[in-house]
Amino acid sequence: MKQGNFLEDFELNKIFKHAIPRTISSGDVALYIGLTGSRNPLNCAKPFAENLGFKDTPIDDILLFHIAFGRTVNDVSLNAIANLGYANIQFKKNAYVGDTIRSESEVIGIKENSNKTTGIVYVHSRTFNQNNEEILSWVRWVMLPKRDASATIDEHVPENLPKESQISEIEREGIDFSNFDLESTGSSKLYEDYQVGEVINHSAGITIDETDHTMATKLYQNNAKLHFDAHMMKGSKFGKRLIYGGHIISLTRAISFEGLENAAQVIGINGGIHSNPSFADDTIYCRSEIVDKFEHKKIKNAGILRIRQVGIKNMASSELPSIKVNQDGKDVYHENVVLDIDYYVIISKRG
Amino acid sequence: MKQGNFLEDFELNKIFKHAIPRTISSGDVALYIGLTGSRNPLNCAKPFAENLGFKDTPIDDILLFHIAFGRTVNDVSLNAIANLGYANIQFKKNAYVGDTIRSESEVIGIKENSNKTTGIVYVHSRTFNQNNEEILSWVRWVMLPKRDASATIDEHVPENLPKESQISEIEREGIDFSNFDLESTGSSKLYEDYQVGEVINHSAGITIDETDHTMATKLYQNNAKLHFDAHMMKGSKFGKRLIYGGHIISLTRAISFEGLENAAQVIGINGGIHSNPSFADDTIYCRSEIVDKFEHKKIKNAGILRIRQVGIKNMASSELPSIKVNQDGKDVYHENVVLDIDYYVIISKRG
Amino acid sequence: MKQGNFLEDFELNKIFKHAIPRTISSGDVALYIGLTGSRNPLNCAKPFAENLGFKDTPIDDILLFHIAFGRTVNDVSLNAIANLGYANIQFKKNAYVGDTIRSESEVIGIKENSNKTTGIVYVHSRTFNQNNEEILSWVRWVMLPKRDASATIDEHVPENLPKESQISEIEREGIDFSNFDLESTGSSKLYEDYQVGEVINHSAGITIDETDHTMATKLYQNNAKLHFDAHMMKGSKFGKRLIYGGHIISLTRAISFEGLENAAQVIGINGGIHSNPSFADDTIYCRSEIVDKFEHKKIKNAGILRIRQVGIKNMASSELPSIKVNQDGKDVYHENVVLDIDYYVIISKRG
Repeated sequence: MKQGNFLEDFELNKIFKHAIPRTISSGDVALYIGLTGSRNPLNCAKPFAENLGFKDTPIDDILLFHIAFGRTVNDVSLNAIANLGYANIQFKKNAYVGDTIRSESEVIGIKENSNKTTGIVYVHSRTFNQNNEEILSWVRWVMLPKRDASATIDEHVPENLPKESQISEIEREGIDFSNFDLESTGSSKLYEDYQVGEVINHSAGITIDETDHTMATKLYQNNAKLHFDAHMMKGSKFGKRLIYGGHIISLTRAISFEGLENAAQVIGINGGIHSNPSFADDTIYCRSEIVDKFEHKKIKNAGILRIRQVGIKNMASSELPSIKVNQDGKDVYHENVVLDIDYYVIISKRG
Repeated sequence: MKQGNFLEDFELNKIFKHAIPRTISSGDVALYIGLTGSRNPLNCAKPFAENLGFKDTPIDDILLFHIAFGRTVNDVSLNAIANLGYANIQFKKNAYVGDTIRSESEVIGIKENSNKTTGIVYVHSRTFNQNNEEILSWVRWVMLPKRDASATIDEHVPENLPKESQISEIEREGIDFSNFDLESTGSSKLYEDYQVGEVINHSAGITIDETDHTMATKLYQNNAKLHFDAHMMKGSKFGKRLIYGGHIISLTRAISFEGLENAAQVIGINGGIHSNPSFADDTIYCRSEIVDKFEHKKIKNAGILRIRQVGIKNMASSELPSIKVNQDGKDVYHENVVLDIDYYVIISKRG
Repeated sequence: MKQGNFLEDFELNKIFKHAIPRTISSGDVALYIGLTGSRNPLNCAKPFAENLGFKDTPIDDILLFHIAFGRTVNDVSLNAIANLGYANIQFKKNAYVGDTIRSESEVIGIKENSNKTTGIVYVHSRTFNQNNEEILSWVRWVMLPKRDASATIDEHVPENLPKESQISEIEREGIDFSNFDLESTGSSKLYEDYQVGEVINHSAGITIDETDHTMATKLYQNNAKLHFDAHMMKGSKFGKRLIYGGHIISLTRAISFEGLENAAQVIGINGGIHSNPSFADDTIYCRSEIVDKFEHKKIKNAGILRIRQVGIKNMASSELPSIKVNQDGKDVYHENVVLDIDYYVIISKRG
């Protein structure tokens, strides 16, 4: 019986076609709202979406990512010691209820650590719909153990991983944000109204209970054991189940609706760091900073905000003194900061 | 960033068009069954509903209310100190999977408290479907803080708030309860068989865990913070998250199926009091009293029962000595009574 | 008000037509994935299912059983002292989203215990879809109290309860497993590759929290109080809510996907024993043993595996020394073994 892959199981350019295609249902969408409290009308109000040219409410981008990512866990990271990073997450096409998605991952890098017992694998993962259209892609690197310390690893470190998501080529054919209904979002703050450097301390906090995060991860069919198996985790350094980092992204995205009501879609994620672990009973808060703003040639009547979004546990965003603190001469994350993510959203422009 | 309204933000006749229209899905319906244990065949068995003339299983009335009500929280009660009361809740039309609902609220009253730092706002809220048909309406009053104690409030106290839901004008076109299938409900107790004054001690109890009530409230996109934010609530007089009062209504309605199997639809709610708070780990029981019964001109082959329904925590209904007790010469609610609600249900008549 | 049946309420050949037909929705399917982590592509990937000749993804067999079984609880086992056993569970036809199912039970046996205060009832339960096709059936026996110890019971013990599920007559018209897509299941281990006697220690463990199992049981509208009512259960020998045994079956079936990826459908269950109780916070593991393998005349390009599947709490399957242990000269279940179930699955054959 196969129990995940080890470092030697990866070689450059090898493609893993991940198992378990998934048809996304209206039940998945409802459960996602119930698990996150997401209020974005684009994802829950059909007339609002149709008014912009979508054929139906598109699947929430972060939900889509979680399901797409869930496909890859069994081959790529079931044995991961650490999920080290992401780059260039691109939301290329919308997905809808009834679409069936599948994912595949190509090995783009592999290197051994100096201890010879572990190493790092870099993969380029792509998700396709039932028409074989690529709808989502990302690069990711994870630390894996070797099965056999004496095995030889043919190293190849990928060069020039993009520091930004390559979103300029993404199209949104047939979508026109000029009909964006501000009454439905509850805010008239649009692209023009955000300033680079602006910081938003979102006020809401959401406490996570065990069933919340384990149900989310089961819904995504992400079978990484450290989220589910409390008996096993008793023997880990955490002593208990670790919350899937993606669930924190879902919560901060949902919490940040207050203040970013018209930021309708995530189009790219530049990178993200799970800076501290989260556990059941933690309350998650969120701070957003507008890092950049620019126009996108292929999306009508909308602009792009680049947002640095920080997830904070057990401390209101307005009370966090700084994201990083100095510790023994080094800049490290504040112990309450659990997420530092950098992404692009599409936001309607003033008509 | 807007963070809810204060007393000064309300003025007589002002209409709030609430954000976030919501398309109701089959996922919402399934999750509601999973959260409440509702067994009413009208809401879960398509042939049963079609047999009565419904075009599909209608959305459970209480679920519909929660989603409709959830729209109003951000404008009306995000800063509420207390939800003081409801009146004249009318279920005017059925809703179905695929319908999109939106809510609006008109200010019908405003008064300042003698302390000059708080006051009471009265709103008339209405919910519409995608065809702009009014399907649900209610009156509600909440205590709100003033943003600025020195602000002048133009007072207007609404007169003659109805003590009963005005249900006589509600129609159920095309619906005929003469085909009501008693095998599907499991009981042959019909309109004629209930006696005014009859008391039913429903036997089932349902224990609420944190995920149950927070998932319910997130599903309704009700963003009142006291249900979600355990970190904030540690500093409150409760010390922990408070359960949304509406979740208790859902549970008592579901529990009361045993003994009221043919009371297929709630058509109006006359009023309700959340007499004591509920918290996770509480077990909810239910007692119903038939307060009145009468016929309804516009609904075929069915009658109306007026029911006083009491929610009780951590004590079987049969063990509750009385709903109110004398305390220092005053009649107050028994400390285990958490809900006292007064509503009308449609119940099939004998053919 | 009716509160379940007692021993005297059963008589030979009496048929209970159970209340509350249920239309199965895509929300039920999503919630089941969220509650169990099921990854079987037949139940979540429409193109995979259609490729085999199914008209859509069929409802997961175990989910179907739970909903079907849930119908019977109120009449058969609301007052059960013990659920003693099952036999001859047959999955006769597939069910799909939109189907409405109902159940009925015929009394096939009744006997009094020597204490004269309790007895055993045997029922043959059958589940039908909206076209009155029988899709599922089983035999079950439960211990019930007598309402009145002096009542006379007309005893009849059923003879020759089948030790195996009678699956030879079951057809799967239009289904052809020759198009089974191994890339979608992630494994190329097929019927021919399993050996009788082979034991699989599945590696995953799933911890159960209170909301998980209570939400599952509420979703199935199974109203057995011992799963829901923590206040009542404080007075029981368990001291807390007992997990529905069926939820353990769901978890072991989901966990056993790893190693049995191509065992697409359960077609019959020969019997099952809930050998020890499970409670919230237990982590469930699973061991499978291939007990038999044979061909099925009426199913194209697939074979049958007979599997003995054991659910284990708080101990990895690989660490369980033996399923039974000797205690005071008797073979009894190891205290960590919570389930011992014996069933047939359909598994694709090599092309």
